[in-house]
Amino acid sequence: MSIHTPDWVKHAVFYQIFPDRFARSSQLHPVFSSAALEPWDAPPTFHGYKGGDLWGVVDQLDYLQNLGVTAIYFTPVFQSASNHRYHTHDYYQVDPLLGGNEALEKLLTSAHSRGIRILLDGVFNHSSRGFFFFNDILENGSRSPWVDWFRIHDWPLSAYDDEKPANYASWWGLRALPQFNHDNPAVREYLMQIGEYWIKRGVDGWRLDVPNEIKADGFWQEFRDRVKAVNPEAYIVGEIWEDARHWLDGTQFDGVMNYLFTAPTIAFAAGDRVDLPLVENRSYRPYPALDAVGYAAKIQELLDLYPWEIHLTQLNLLDSHDTARLISIAQGDRDSVKLATLLLLTFPGAPSIYYGDEVGLPGGSDPDCRRGFPTPDQWDRDALAYHRELIALRHSHPALRTGDYRILAAVGHCYVFSRTLGQDSLLVAVNAGLDPAEVTLTADTLPTNPVDRHLWGAGEFHITEGQLTLRLPGRSGLVLG
Amino acid sequence: MSIHTPDWVKHAVFYQIFPDRFARSSQLHPVFSSAALEPWDAPPTFHGYKGGDLWGVVDQLDYLQNLGVTAIYFTPVFQSASNHRYHTHDYYQVDPLLGGNEALEKLLTSAHSRGIRILLDGVFNHSSRGFFFFNDILENGSRSPWVDWFRIHDWPLSAYDDEKPANYASWWGLRALPQFNHDNPAVREYLMQIGEYWIKRGVDGWRLDVPNEIKADGFWQEFRDRVKAVNPEAYIVGEIWEDARHWLDGTQFDGVMNYLFTAPTIAFAAGDRVDLPLVENRSYRPYPALDAVGYAAKIQELLDLYPWEIHLTQLNLLDSHDTARLISIAQGDRDSVKLATLLLLTFPGAPSIYYGDEVGLPGGSDPDCRRGFPTPDQWDRDALAYHRELIALRHSHPALRTGDYRILAAVGHCYVFSRTLGQDSLLVAVNAGLDPAEVTLTADTLPTNPVDRHLWGAGEFHITEGQLTLRLPGRSGLVLG
Repeated sequence: MSIHTPDWVKHAVFYQIFPDRFARSSQLHPVFSSAALEPWDAPPTFHGYKGGDLWGVVDQLDYLQNLGVTAIYFTPVFQSASNHRYHTHDYYQVDPLLGGNEALEKLLTSAHSRGIRILLDGVFNHSSRGFFFFNDILENGSRSPWVDWFRIHDWPLSAYDDEKPANYASWWGLRALPQFNHDNPAVREYLMQIGEYWIKRGVDGWRLDVPNEIKADGFWQEFRDRVKAVNPEAYIVGEIWEDARHWLDGTQFDGVMNYLFTAPTIAFAAGDRVDLPLVENRSYRPYPALDAVGYAAKIQELLDLYPWEIHLTQLNLLDSHDTARLISIAQGDRDSVKLATLLLLTFPGAPSIYYGDEVGLPGGSDPDCRRGFPTPDQWDRDALAYHRELIALRHSHPALRTGDYRILAAVGHCYVFSRTLGQDSLLVAVNAGLDPAEVTLTADTLPTNPVDRHLWGAGEFHITEGQLTLRLPGRSGLVLG
Repeated sequence: MSIHTPDWVKHAVFYQIFPDRFARSSQLHPVFSSAALEPWDAPPTFHGYKGGDLWGVVDQLDYLQNLGVTAIYFTPVFQSASNHRYHTHDYYQVDPLLGGNEALEKLLTSAHSRGIRILLDGVFNHSSRGFFFFNDILENGSRSPWVDWFRIHDWPLSAYDDEKPANYASWWGLRALPQFNHDNPAVREYLMQIGEYWIKRGVDGWRLDVPNEIKADGFWQEFRDRVKAVNPEAYIVGEIWEDARHWLDGTQFDGVMNYLFTAPTIAFAAGDRVDLPLVENRSYRPYPALDAVGYAAKIQELLDLYPWEIHLTQLNLLDSHDTARLISIAQGDRDSVKLATLLLLTFPGAPSIYYGDEVGLPGGSDPDCRRGFPTPDQWDRDALAYHRELIALRHSHPALRTGDYRILAAVGHCYVFSRTLGQDSLLVAVNAGLDPAEVTLTADTLPTNPVDRHLWGAGEFHITEGQLTLRLPGRSGLVLG
């Protein structure tokens, strides 16, 4: 079958927002603005809220537009009794502390008028203990009308009693997250309608939380069909950390959270600087350090894994709410982030910048990676500058978005590749080593289009008889076009 | 101050519906229509649902209109994890099993087009454990933004652990019903807005659940002001079982659930037939038996308690979802119900008929008083006939609605009163005794308007030289006009 993915995603630059932590507004309704919050700049806790809201995001659209962002991916915004809002309480209500449905509507209108698209996070594997249909079972036991919406093992439910085993199916055995019975046609229909509903309201797509947990036959195929029937250009991206071929056959997702790009890119750019306790025993593996040959192998393996049309709509990222931030993983080494960001912004697929990365916000493992967005006096201005530059570079060169990706050289710590679309080729070189390095590319290695102009970065280059020689300082990157 | 109450209520005949039990439709959304329900005709349980819905009520509007009903008072309809729906989960959503907000909108439109008004039940003293703001405290403990919305005594909450004492304020100590902190201005505002919201959506008034539990200064005064600002003719009726002068000063409620009428009316009409186990230790006292003098004293005491304007908008009833049904209290004696219904339909204030009473549906204490509405083959046709007749009588005689109430005679088991408005007087006589009785009223006792026409009921009357002599069979009522 031919695979169709949404064209706009191929050209998008995403910005991932954890809504409780990005921006607070003064527009929140008085009923909710008096909520008891943690200080914005205090270390995040598992259970406290800082009170960021969607009105605050509306206020920051200028900032995001100046950064070059064309799409925002929000971690969950629906009513939820958790600061990350993955414990859904009501799939049809935006959380009151975020401004409610009214704020999302305003955000959609304002963002769309700037050409910025909005992606929401859908948690369809499990709900929360307060979710109406589960709560009814908790209150009414086996007489609940909704008893078949979940998988109850025995009675009474020990939903809040940690001294007894959880006696219903739940995500990773966490009793806070009761798992839907997706084999119940009513449940399935209920979830499908949520998928349709928000697309009808103008949302541009779904990021799907732990979609691999849902085993019901044809679930994601139907989800895709129904969402795309509402908006054929809606983007569907799944949270799959590993080989995602099963979901990327064109009948389910347009892409996945591309941690298969993240991991080697960190291992290459940060190398031995990686702080192991922050990355060990996680679902991705940004260690051990990779040299250029190792990195090239991983990238080629990734590129060989999926159809090209899928690669163009992958969601590529360096970190997220689910990982430590790269600046912390790299133990504060700014060049690691800069080089990885260059690799991110020049890779096929939509780059996604985790809020605050662009101003150097640090953060260890959850919940530390979810700090309040810093005030301007705390910003890393250099990081902000190269983020803007690299985003602008991507926007001005279609080849960086949809051009062929070809690895030209991998020597020591030097990795060189080209992106080619029609008459336009770009060459990207990264020297992840501490020492300066020289790489010579013969004419038959180079793209047929000329790559003789400096577009971004540090280093020198000479072209002699069709041969290109690059001289790269240690820890630097260079883009030619 | 002058008291203003809604004029329409003075002329209304209410019908009280317990939504899970009145009528099922075939219009419920497939997602919800597959819910696991109890059989309609099985004895009600505390935790099971029978699946009545608001679409079903729409289907029955012809029936209600033929009965003469002009207003429906619904026990709660908002999303709730309980079959009675007093455990509110979301004040802005009609329960999905009732058809959701869409069904209520359709009901409002359909009912209004027939001149039938809709009263909803507001539970503003407490919420449920699944209510979002309480659930957040349950999930996040002292770090919840909403911790001041309730009164927490200590941590962790023992919300579902019956082996520990409930450690937060709750209604009657029931941990399923956490009590709002009404001193928190945000909570107060949140509740006020609910009051306004549904009136704006077209609801015609609020029946207020346990309003005496809310002690916050000026709460109900503000509620009245804000609701009446949206619709000056909205009806506000409180669930106060006893002396309600505190709430009926014109600044709070238009009326109360008039159990001070209910109790003596049962004690008089049913007398010694009252099944004590069904009425003992309740908030009203329909025993011991009253003779006519005792009944007259109670009624006069009640009439002296409140301003006349208030009496005209009281909600009068014989039974409800909170009591056993009268037919069961009277141990199956149909005349008890018939005589009490005559007294109800001829009393000042809006009569309210509890669904099913009009077809003789029996029911003991909660939950038995909440049976599924019977199929036509089970109806008491005589009961239906006299309900229709007495409602029609009330509609055709303004004096029965807003006329003066004057007790003319109380002798043995015979109770006689008149209702007079301008040139129209009606005389109502009830012989609650088993034996035939004769009562003679002298000219100076009788209304100045003639009461010389038989309007309803059994018995004979003779007028001689201005004297009226009534001959009433045992257990009968008579209306002259």
